[in-house]
Amino acid sequence: MKDEANNVKNILKPEDIKPPAAVAEWVGDCRTGVLRLLDQTLLPEQTVYIDCKDTPAVWEAIRRLAVRGAPAIGVAAAYGMVTAAQNVGEDNFLDDLAAQGQYLVSSRPTAVNLEWAVNRIMALVRGAGQADPAEIRRMMLEEARAIHAEDQAMCLAIGLAAAPLIRKVGGVLTHCNAGALATGGIGTATAGMYVAHAAGHEFTVYCDETRPLLQGSRLTAWELNRAGIDAVVITDNMSAQVMREGKVAMVITGADRIAANGDAANKIGTYGVAIAARHHGIPFYVAAPYSTFDLDLPSGDSIPIELRGSEEITEGFGRRTAPHDIKTYSPAFGVTPAELITAIITDRGVIDPVNTENVSRIVGP
Amino acid sequence: MKDEANNVKNILKPEDIKPPAAVAEWVGDCRTGVLRLLDQTLLPEQTVYIDCKDTPAVWEAIRRLAVRGAPAIGVAAAYGMVTAAQNVGEDNFLDDLAAQGQYLVSSRPTAVNLEWAVNRIMALVRGAGQADPAEIRRMMLEEARAIHAEDQAMCLAIGLAAAPLIRKVGGVLTHCNAGALATGGIGTATAGMYVAHAAGHEFTVYCDETRPLLQGSRLTAWELNRAGIDAVVITDNMSAQVMREGKVAMVITGADRIAANGDAANKIGTYGVAIAARHHGIPFYVAAPYSTFDLDLPSGDSIPIELRGSEEITEGFGRRTAPHDIKTYSPAFGVTPAELITAIITDRGVIDPVNTENVSRIVGP
Repeated sequence: MKDEANNVKNILKPEDIKPPAAVAEWVGDCRTGVLRLLDQTLLPEQTVYIDCKDTPAVWEAIRRLAVRGAPAIGVAAAYGMVTAAQNVGEDNFLDDLAAQGQYLVSSRPTAVNLEWAVNRIMALVRGAGQADPAEIRRMMLEEARAIHAEDQAMCLAIGLAAAPLIRKVGGVLTHCNAGALATGGIGTATAGMYVAHAAGHEFTVYCDETRPLLQGSRLTAWELNRAGIDAVVITDNMSAQVMREGKVAMVITGADRIAANGDAANKIGTYGVAIAARHHGIPFYVAAPYSTFDLDLPSGDSIPIELRGSEEITEGFGRRTAPHDIKTYSPAFGVTPAELITAIITDRGVIDPVNTENVSRIVGP
Repeated sequence: MKDEANNVKNILKPEDIKPPAAVAEWVGDCRTGVLRLLDQTLLPEQTVYIDCKDTPAVWEAIRRLAVRGAPAIGVAAAYGMVTAAQNVGEDNFLDDLAAQGQYLVSSRPTAVNLEWAVNRIMALVRGAGQADPAEIRRMMLEEARAIHAEDQAMCLAIGLAAAPLIRKVGGVLTHCNAGALATGGIGTATAGMYVAHAAGHEFTVYCDETRPLLQGSRLTAWELNRAGIDAVVITDNMSAQVMREGKVAMVITGADRIAANGDAANKIGTYGVAIAARHHGIPFYVAAPYSTFDLDLPSGDSIPIELRGSEEITEGFGRRTAPHDIKTYSPAFGVTPAELITAIITDRGVIDPVNTENVSRIVGP
């Protein structure tokens, strides 16, 4: 696999491999520029960008999921801090900036990358000592751009490792959106697809619609389609059937959190797809940056599963589709045990086979 | 299992076990009465009944799926012929009636039970010789009621065979609607649930919502809820997770067509549920009347799979949830191979294990 990855590397330059849309970007200079976000809540119907000039605008965008996906939220928050620096006075510059940072973090307290990005920007500010605010603003934008560039590099590294797998096959199945829309770059599960596509390989991606919130049909299908990749939407319960029909030669998904033994929590439905893949002898890959690993958790059993409200199931998209007084059960995530995962593709290397020893070797301290 | 089935039979009388709603019933006498149908297109939001006084009304109801499910359509068509007899003149009684029958059959040409019911009524009419139309109308209503009663007896026979399985477990999972709403009685997959419930057993039924048309959340959840059975709606991609969490001890679904070797075609998604059940060591049952078997088909490979249009996937919830120019793939059915089916519960006995020999023994000629 290494040889083929190098082949892809040789024929492609990183600048050839672009995400289909800029999820978050800084437009202009550090003094008067703005953070431009793609409003993902309006996809796939409308492609609308929001220009954020202050932290309340960024806070609101993160809160209402206009920007979502851990890496993308981190990038947005880093740029968001630059808008903070444009708006706080010079008298209490550092304290006011820190307060703005805490405010931004409160928009989605469980998003690890959000707090991480704010802290990184604030560490830079604190380290800048007595530099004047104009200079600090310039350094902040530079740091935010660095965070963004690192995220792009992370995606590219995963994509270069994953692309050779995709180049060998005719059909790929993915679940939810671990795509460009969730990162500052070309995504995680989708990264190999964008690299393989840029290298001229033709393949079809079956996108599970991903109930209840339909990230697959609304987001993954949108971004692959926009990039010119052959995308086909199926309902979640069709994945086993398309496997049986021989349409799918591999599955690749993202992950929200991976334990030390390789058990991977991801959007509800991923586990069922992994079982079906195993039943059909189809490899099941997880693509995730090393920051997704939580090595303090020995196994997936310790990953808490968030339960969501009824409405997402019973009236998800405009009309009521279940009785009013009906019960629902709605786990947001599920854990795919390591033994169902063929390999985990990270920005630091490929974990194959998936076990505690290999996880530690590739992404350990 | 036989002993337990007999136990249930002993404590319950058939009249104790009622469907939660009358899908199709005749109200009044044969001369002025009407066919009353539950308009299933308005479920779960509204419970509205339609009184059909002539064949155009019945034709329309069948066509637009106000009544659906093979057995229920057969019952509706049989009563529909009585409305025909109320409206044709005496001069050309038999020919006009036959024409009305052909017209009714055209409402849904692929529904086998529809043509079967019309033919059975017409055979009776032809056999009645020179009886006067008033007498023939009376005989027709009697025959339609017999068809209805046979359907109820079929459901009850399945229910009595399936109930002991359900009485032993705490959680049941079902997919789509093979329920009372699809038959003239207590359904097929649901029959055992209604019998076990009438016998005082408490259990929870996890209802896959069943994309794209949501028969699980719209219909199965509605009818179980109305009957006082604890029903919980989940999205299709949650079924593997609820199995993993130990919430489900058995799966039971209906079937649209079963081949001679026991391979069973059913609503898309059933196959994936069967794979997940096998993975978790959970028994997977199919409940179906003997009329579902097509012994001319050696295996499921010869069952044609209908492909449906895009809109059911891309705008099934009332608003567009996928890009406008996106491809979809939408098989309406899938085949669950016999080796994944623990047993098939029919109105003529239980096929266990599922193989050609046992299928032939239980439902063969």
